[in-house]
Amino acid sequence: MTNPSLYPRPALTVDCVVFGLDQQGLQVLLIQRDVPPFAGEWALPGGFVRLDESLDAAARRELSEETGVRIEYLEQLYTFGAVDRDPRERVVTVAYYALVKLASHAPVAATDARAAQWFPIGSTPKVAFDHEQILTAALERLRGKLRRKPVGFDLLPPRFSLRQLQQLYEQVLGRELDKRNFRKKILGMDLLVETDERESGVAHRAARLYRFDVKKYQRLCLQGFHFEV
Amino acid sequence: MTNPSLYPRPALTVDCVVFGLDQQGLQVLLIQRDVPPFAGEWALPGGFVRLDESLDAAARRELSEETGVRIEYLEQLYTFGAVDRDPRERVVTVAYYALVKLASHAPVAATDARAAQWFPIGSTPKVAFDHEQILTAALERLRGKLRRKPVGFDLLPPRFSLRQLQQLYEQVLGRELDKRNFRKKILGMDLLVETDERESGVAHRAARLYRFDVKKYQRLCLQGFHFEV
Repeated sequence: MTNPSLYPRPALTVDCVVFGLDQQGLQVLLIQRDVPPFAGEWALPGGFVRLDESLDAAARRELSEETGVRIEYLEQLYTFGAVDRDPRERVVTVAYYALVKLASHAPVAATDARAAQWFPIGSTPKVAFDHEQILTAALERLRGKLRRKPVGFDLLPPRFSLRQLQQLYEQVLGRELDKRNFRKKILGMDLLVETDERESGVAHRAARLYRFDVKKYQRLCLQGFHFEV
Repeated sequence: MTNPSLYPRPALTVDCVVFGLDQQGLQVLLIQRDVPPFAGEWALPGGFVRLDESLDAAARRELSEETGVRIEYLEQLYTFGAVDRDPRERVVTVAYYALVKLASHAPVAATDARAAQWFPIGSTPKVAFDHEQILTAALERLRGKLRRKPVGFDLLPPRFSLRQLQQLYEQVLGRELDKRNFRKKILGMDLLVETDERESGVAHRAARLYRFDVKKYQRLCLQGFHFEV
């Protein structure tokens, strides 16, 4: 078909899965819908793509409008297009995801959102549309990525203890890891540099602090690796 | 916005990157466009998504209509939505990709395609729209996947030599691999079972044939691994 304007077309939206991480663990940002369908129900922040903006820009704009959370880089996850996924009509959605420090991103609801709030993974409310499926896919992608790339290291302070690093992995993977095995593997990657500093202001024995070897970190980011714990 | 039908919306298409593999190496399936824009130019097979079909179904239908090639499983690659990627108007495309045995998929052009043909990677003609970018992304994804999953093993006969397996990797990766290093790594994965059979009808010394350990193969498919050669 030569002229696309002659044919009916699906509506196109973007939806954002923003994971936030803090000492309490992995959380996800949801909004409470203020408009039908599913008014009053929780859902991923998102909305319709405008003709004059890229998909990435639409995702950032909707996230900012509905939650006040601004994120420079969202990664495209997958496009969901089941014929009956929206009760209004055919709507295809391009899903995005990101992992951020929760503390730096306090949500403020606006536009189509009655409320915006972080929910711990595992204690999320029922969500509208096929957003449960999107959330599950984002979580799988994030966990897969953690095994292949030194992702999430941006979430730590410049100097950190091995315990902090292990907590980050445990929170994203959602399970406890064996301390000895974890340390052996992570140190074996030759990615960390031991510093002369130690933790301060902790109740337990002050642990040694490490930093990333920036060059090796960047090389591993490009190459990927396999980290099975 | 509550009622999506009140707002102008982008058109939505699917495009398919089908890689074919044979002894000559990795090739890609292109069509020559019979309609404007870019009439007479080569492009990825694809077209507009209908209201009553899923994205996957649209991709399989367009591929079949334009090239006669039928593929059960295409994997979603990425959705491309740059504002100016189509000269007609705003068109967003969901790209899919697959890797098949070239010999089993002879193309026959029809509908919007004047011709359909396999082209060796590295000798592809100039392609329309942003299809060069899509093709590059698909190739990167395929190569990344080869390092993480025992993908492509479906492309070999049930019993195969280590030389055949190495050729498969070399053809997808687009470079020669060190024989000794490759064998050490692939055998070290404990994925292959040595059989009592040897090659027949070859000019060189008949090599031993191997098969996959199906259970380990399936487990590795789920788990993923890291295979750096």
